[in-house]
Amino acid sequence: MTTPKYVYVFANGHSEGRGDQKDLLGGKGAGLAEMTHLGIPVPAGFTLTTEVCTYFNNHAKGYPPELWDQVLDAMRQTEEAMGHRFGDAADPLLVSVRSGARVSMPGMMDTVLNLGLNDATVQGLIAKSGNARFGWDAYRRFITMYGDVVLGVPHAAFEKILDAKKAAVGALLDTDLSADDLRSLIASYKQLVLETTGKPFPDDPLVQLRGGINAVFDSWNVPRAITYRKLNAIPDHWGTAVNVVSMVYGNRGETSGTGVAFTRDPATGERRFFGEYLVNAQGEDVVAGIRTPLPIAELERQMPSIYRQLVEIYQGLERHYQDMQDMEFTVEEGKLYMLQTRTGKRTAQAAVRIAVEMVSEGLIDEATAVSRVAPAQLDQLLHPRIDTDQPVEVVAKGLPASPGAAVGGVVFTAEAAIEAAAKGRQVVLVRAETSPDDVGGMHAAEGILTARGGMTSHAAVVARGMGKCCVAGCAAIQVDAEARQFTAGDRVVHEFDTISLNGSTGEVILGAAKLIVPELSGDFNKLMGWADQIRTLKVRTNADTPEDAANAVAFGAEGIGLCRTEHMFFGEERLPVVQEMILAEDEATRRAVLARLLPFQRDDFLGIFRAMDGRPVTIRLLDPPLHEFLPSREGLIEEVATLRANGRDPAALVVKERLLAKVNHLHELNPMLGHRGCRLGISYPEIYEMQAEAIALAACALRQEGKRIVPEIMIPLVGTVAEFRYLKERIVKVVEEVKGRAGVELDYLIGTMIEIPRAALTADAIAAEAEFFSCGTNDLTQMTFGYSRDDAGVFLPDYLEKKILPVDPFQVLDRDGVGQLIRMAVEKGRSARPELKVGICGEHGGEPSSIEFCHQVGLNYVSCSPFRVPIARLAAAHAALASRK
Amino acid sequence: MTTPKYVYVFANGHSEGRGDQKDLLGGKGAGLAEMTHLGIPVPAGFTLTTEVCTYFNNHAKGYPPELWDQVLDAMRQTEEAMGHRFGDAADPLLVSVRSGARVSMPGMMDTVLNLGLNDATVQGLIAKSGNARFGWDAYRRFITMYGDVVLGVPHAAFEKILDAKKAAVGALLDTDLSADDLRSLIASYKQLVLETTGKPFPDDPLVQLRGGINAVFDSWNVPRAITYRKLNAIPDHWGTAVNVVSMVYGNRGETSGTGVAFTRDPATGERRFFGEYLVNAQGEDVVAGIRTPLPIAELERQMPSIYRQLVEIYQGLERHYQDMQDMEFTVEEGKLYMLQTRTGKRTAQAAVRIAVEMVSEGLIDEATAVSRVAPAQLDQLLHPRIDTDQPVEVVAKGLPASPGAAVGGVVFTAEAAIEAAAKGRQVVLVRAETSPDDVGGMHAAEGILTARGGMTSHAAVVARGMGKCCVAGCAAIQVDAEARQFTAGDRVVHEFDTISLNGSTGEVILGAAKLIVPELSGDFNKLMGWADQIRTLKVRTNADTPEDAANAVAFGAEGIGLCRTEHMFFGEERLPVVQEMILAEDEATRRAVLARLLPFQRDDFLGIFRAMDGRPVTIRLLDPPLHEFLPSREGLIEEVATLRANGRDPAALVVKERLLAKVNHLHELNPMLGHRGCRLGISYPEIYEMQAEAIALAACALRQEGKRIVPEIMIPLVGTVAEFRYLKERIVKVVEEVKGRAGVELDYLIGTMIEIPRAALTADAIAAEAEFFSCGTNDLTQMTFGYSRDDAGVFLPDYLEKKILPVDPFQVLDRDGVGQLIRMAVEKGRSARPELKVGICGEHGGEPSSIEFCHQVGLNYVSCSPFRVPIARLAAAHAALASRK
Repeated sequence: MTTPKYVYVFANGHSEGRGDQKDLLGGKGAGLAEMTHLGIPVPAGFTLTTEVCTYFNNHAKGYPPELWDQVLDAMRQTEEAMGHRFGDAADPLLVSVRSGARVSMPGMMDTVLNLGLNDATVQGLIAKSGNARFGWDAYRRFITMYGDVVLGVPHAAFEKILDAKKAAVGALLDTDLSADDLRSLIASYKQLVLETTGKPFPDDPLVQLRGGINAVFDSWNVPRAITYRKLNAIPDHWGTAVNVVSMVYGNRGETSGTGVAFTRDPATGERRFFGEYLVNAQGEDVVAGIRTPLPIAELERQMPSIYRQLVEIYQGLERHYQDMQDMEFTVEEGKLYMLQTRTGKRTAQAAVRIAVEMVSEGLIDEATAVSRVAPAQLDQLLHPRIDTDQPVEVVAKGLPASPGAAVGGVVFTAEAAIEAAAKGRQVVLVRAETSPDDVGGMHAAEGILTARGGMTSHAAVVARGMGKCCVAGCAAIQVDAEARQFTAGDRVVHEFDTISLNGSTGEVILGAAKLIVPELSGDFNKLMGWADQIRTLKVRTNADTPEDAANAVAFGAEGIGLCRTEHMFFGEERLPVVQEMILAEDEATRRAVLARLLPFQRDDFLGIFRAMDGRPVTIRLLDPPLHEFLPSREGLIEEVATLRANGRDPAALVVKERLLAKVNHLHELNPMLGHRGCRLGISYPEIYEMQAEAIALAACALRQEGKRIVPEIMIPLVGTVAEFRYLKERIVKVVEEVKGRAGVELDYLIGTMIEIPRAALTADAIAAEAEFFSCGTNDLTQMTFGYSRDDAGVFLPDYLEKKILPVDPFQVLDRDGVGQLIRMAVEKGRSARPELKVGICGEHGGEPSSIEFCHQVGLNYVSCSPFRVPIARLAAAHAALASRK
Repeated sequence: MTTPKYVYVFANGHSEGRGDQKDLLGGKGAGLAEMTHLGIPVPAGFTLTTEVCTYFNNHAKGYPPELWDQVLDAMRQTEEAMGHRFGDAADPLLVSVRSGARVSMPGMMDTVLNLGLNDATVQGLIAKSGNARFGWDAYRRFITMYGDVVLGVPHAAFEKILDAKKAAVGALLDTDLSADDLRSLIASYKQLVLETTGKPFPDDPLVQLRGGINAVFDSWNVPRAITYRKLNAIPDHWGTAVNVVSMVYGNRGETSGTGVAFTRDPATGERRFFGEYLVNAQGEDVVAGIRTPLPIAELERQMPSIYRQLVEIYQGLERHYQDMQDMEFTVEEGKLYMLQTRTGKRTAQAAVRIAVEMVSEGLIDEATAVSRVAPAQLDQLLHPRIDTDQPVEVVAKGLPASPGAAVGGVVFTAEAAIEAAAKGRQVVLVRAETSPDDVGGMHAAEGILTARGGMTSHAAVVARGMGKCCVAGCAAIQVDAEARQFTAGDRVVHEFDTISLNGSTGEVILGAAKLIVPELSGDFNKLMGWADQIRTLKVRTNADTPEDAANAVAFGAEGIGLCRTEHMFFGEERLPVVQEMILAEDEATRRAVLARLLPFQRDDFLGIFRAMDGRPVTIRLLDPPLHEFLPSREGLIEEVATLRANGRDPAALVVKERLLAKVNHLHELNPMLGHRGCRLGISYPEIYEMQAEAIALAACALRQEGKRIVPEIMIPLVGTVAEFRYLKERIVKVVEEVKGRAGVELDYLIGTMIEIPRAALTADAIAAEAEFFSCGTNDLTQMTFGYSRDDAGVFLPDYLEKKILPVDPFQVLDRDGVGQLIRMAVEKGRSARPELKVGICGEHGGEPSSIEFCHQVGLNYVSCSPFRVPIARLAAAHAALASRK
């Protein structure tokens, strides 16, 4: 048996790992290995694989027995490449220990820098760098970080000692402290550690290394990392790798520096070298947004040769990866080191532009371009923006960190954002700066405004990833979270005052700005065109009005998959007629009242058919229980009791009592499982007959104008083929009569929803009669899980929290359960009718992962709300691409 | 290609068909063929097969082209055997045309007798019989019957003419009319036919024959036949055969007669020749119950040689068929003809006795004996009877036509019975005599009382078949259906007055008699013992109290399949504590209150464990939503509105408002799909922990006494394995703690209900954790169909009426849909855990057809209410026997 390999070295232009081993080495480790392999200057180091993390999690935080020897061996190779030795008092090698999962989880897990320092090696560091202040600063930073991350001593406790020292020596900034000041902190820091943990701070570099590695693996399971994974659907079992990398320093004076750069503009997608750097600074200073960095272009002036080298590297990396890269670099005393490269996060707008431009540059093909834009991201492009033609009161301006617009009440903590959002309130989260602890609140907010930090600050990166509007580094505002207010000049904005953010300009606006529907760019249309070429799944929309229908067509809808006729029953002029119909005592009266509804329904369909201009339209016959059209029972009980108790209006009492009697008669304990859908149609065939007549009248009118229309009449809530057959016969009769009277040819289909488990189970029998299926996954999910969507809010959040459900099944289609029924419906249905058309019209029809599933099981189309049509088109293309592999 | 054979002749001791061809020839046709084959005297004739009926139904009432030639040929053979010719004016052959389905549908379809008569042949009949009155009577009966059945002239119209004639000549009875009187009716009858139908009455015998055959096939689809098939689960597609049989006459004077006989007593099962006959009468007179017939024993005196011949035939037939036979015979001028033999209907008591005695007689084996008793029939034996030790007011006595007892309000029409039963009212149907149109009402009633008719009258036969108590031929009562009352002596009983019937004595009792639980006979226990030997399916019971448990054990239950703990929460002392628990604001308070419920629960389980004495007990943890334990929301809304409006009691208002707030908080739109079952257990683990502790405490107490107990803890409403795992961990922890404290060994199982479709779909994953499954088919049916059982009453009757559902799926398990999920649960479950125990605890667990399905899919046990345990045992044996074939 060969020993499993847990550690992969990269050093001296040679790497044991490869760029495509992200699953094993994590994104950062794979990037370092690949860059080393490409001959790009990278500090030497090694990666402990994600398998070690899995082992760690499954063995009560234990390690494979072979691990430590492999680490020591890797350390020897690293020492050799860097020319220093770890723990060498004369010329010590120092290392960073960082997490690195398959996909980036920025700031979620722990890091330790400057590891390897102790009272002896610090002297070597000072001697070699010739900079005592640098040496002692590195040492006190190391103790602070290691103390916090590995030993659990609160960061604030170290800060307190630091602040006391600054006060004692009259220093304002950290940089005002001298080498001696810093050195004197070491003893206090170590004392703090001893007092807090009961143990001395570890001096042995190898003990430090073990502790650092342990802390990073452990941080996979800190709450904020778990939350982040849940929000981003990252499986818990993936685990993180740990990268141990030789330290290089951007803070060794004016010939040193550090920066972050993108190969293209991550906000707009423009093809230009984009980034920021700080001279004489460590990497953390850029990312944390504490000092405001300089644009990368400045570097050309300050360090021309480094700049040239960087340009060559970035161009090479983009060519190599054929995608936009997000890189970190450090210059140590005039020598450039690349610390990381990875696929850069980008806004939806940038994603589209980069993808389309890379095709014209010949870098990637069209299919790759399509695969580069995440369907869910399009939401950003499709959401409204601020109407800049309207007068607005701009009170401050920050960096346009993530585009779009947000309007909401101001809140000052993540908790407040979550709480308000849970109540359905739209809020904007305002923070001095954000930290990983704020992620939950950012998710809940409409947009984020920060006073500090640049375009690559935490707030900016996370907001772009979420597709949330963000204005960052808005120095013009002072945030006082305690007092729950911020000031902008002389304006004071209190909690829940409404503001608007313009993520494209960085403007902060008082009050609610007017929003406009976005126009879609030429690049967008080009990309969507390619997506349409690739996808095989058709995309329809759920629309009940000519306006919605027209809107959806503009977004690329190829038909209506669900037109809900009950929405038409609720119109102001119609509801009283509908109520009259419900209260009718016999069929004759009901038919008479229905005859008055007929013209309304016919005109509804006429409008929709015209808007769809020959595209298929699936019309669902009346679905909800009749009591939904009547006043609420509880309200009536209260009114009747009140009228009875006060005895003031006996006439009103009689009327209300009569109405209550009818409402009581129609009352259901579980209306979801009650007298609705085709059950109504069977009890009162005259309702469906009226609807069928209205559809036929509208369709025949169009045919008389010489237009194409093939209405698809859909019977809801079918559970047995007999129900379908019973209603189909009646509908055919009505439609044929209308056709006869109109004297036109008209094709039409009669099909059913698959939304009752039994319909899926007996789909072969039903398909023998039904000409199409449409999977109503909202109801199907309700019945398959036995969850009432109206009531599940009580326990679903808890279920997600406790990981009993990985995702909300009403948002993301449950493949194991509901999906199994859909697969059954497709397979059994087509066994009886090979050409059977099957679609989906539940809300899952606009959700990318669910759309992928629909493609996999061979559905003909998905149907979703108009705004989600482009998302569905792109998701369908992604699904087609995925299945090509 | 050979011509299909549609007609089978039996004549002259030779028959083309066989007794085992019931599917093709119907029961009657197969019996006639078999009897002819056995050399028993049968009037010659022929059978048109059920395939003709199928053809007829599928071809818009058309016939196979080959049919008529085959009929004519068969008629020629019949003429030859009988020595007369059809339509011969000198010596005519007359025939009957009767239905005959695979299984008997007594009185449901049409019959025509004396077919072949016209103005010419009637003279031949008179000449040959030497009896003018007989000839004219036969002719006018024929016109009446043919006119009614074939031509659609109402029977009452003929009766009116007859009554007028009787009045004109001063006749009281039909028999008072002279030959001339009868002859004079012919012209009036023919005139009536001409006026009503616009066509003359057909004189041509072959035209008559065609018409008769057509009418009988057509009567397969009359409403009463359809209703009967629905009630008896006879498939519509079976169709009926038509038998054309030479007429023989029991009304040719004192040497003629007709009767019905059974080879054993169909009420008690006693081995004796049992039957009734009438001298000088037609068969219809016996069955219709118009004249009260004589016991068969009288025949030995009146016609000794016929009697001896009959005894020999009946003994031969029973030996031949190895089952009790129900025979019709006619004696025509001293010659015996057997008109029919078939398996005799019998009461449950008789079925058990006959089956057991036939085994001791060596006629059948034990398995056959078991198969001879229909499980559903046992209901009769298990239902209470009237306590004859209590004083009752007997107001009349009729024939004990069908045993058992009935208590209910009196109704006088089938419609009234159906309507009252639909409202949940228990009724007794009282009729002068019943007809096939009353079948629906008889089904709805608790029992039937008729003033006229014998033990083989329509009412008696149908009631015995249904297992309903019936008192027939109760001449002491006068029924006035118009006035909605009957009189018995000087007592007048009005509609909805309560009476009781004693079906074993024929007593009619005023008021509600006291009923007693039946004791089961030795024969019954012997038969059940054989059934237990045969069946492989175990039978458990659903029981929540020690009393129910003990009762079920007495009925043969082998364990408890479902012990519902919520029933224990409703106890008088407990409900306030449960409410306190629900209203608790935090977990600590909840736990404190639960600690007070613990001793109650422990004692509940202790009692049940003791009663079950080592048999397995499956305990379901709390299932219903918590609001079920609080006052109704509607009531509170009303109270609060009233208190507010009258302003009289502000303190009470505050209390009620607070309670209403909590009830509103817990209110659910679809509680069936809401916060219940394991969802409660996950939200409030302390509830399930208390229950698990109570179970463990009770079980450990028993173990400490050295008794055997393996509690099976069942988690309800599981839809995902994660739910199960989450709760299982907590339950194991609690039980292990109790075991540790008690210091005893205790085995236990933790399993789940399969009642959510998703549980069945993912049964493999769930079975990896769950140690047993119990299919909760009540909820599974609700969710698979999407029917709320509480609300489906609005449309289910309509669905059954319109044949959208063949049966109520809450009564008979739906094999196509729900059954598919159960099969999946078993197969997937056992793929993950081969030894997985799977049972069923929905109400289907006591329904024979559902039990057969459970056997087929390999369930380990069924569980049902205590009273249905014997039915389940027998049904399980039937299922095992059926699968042996």
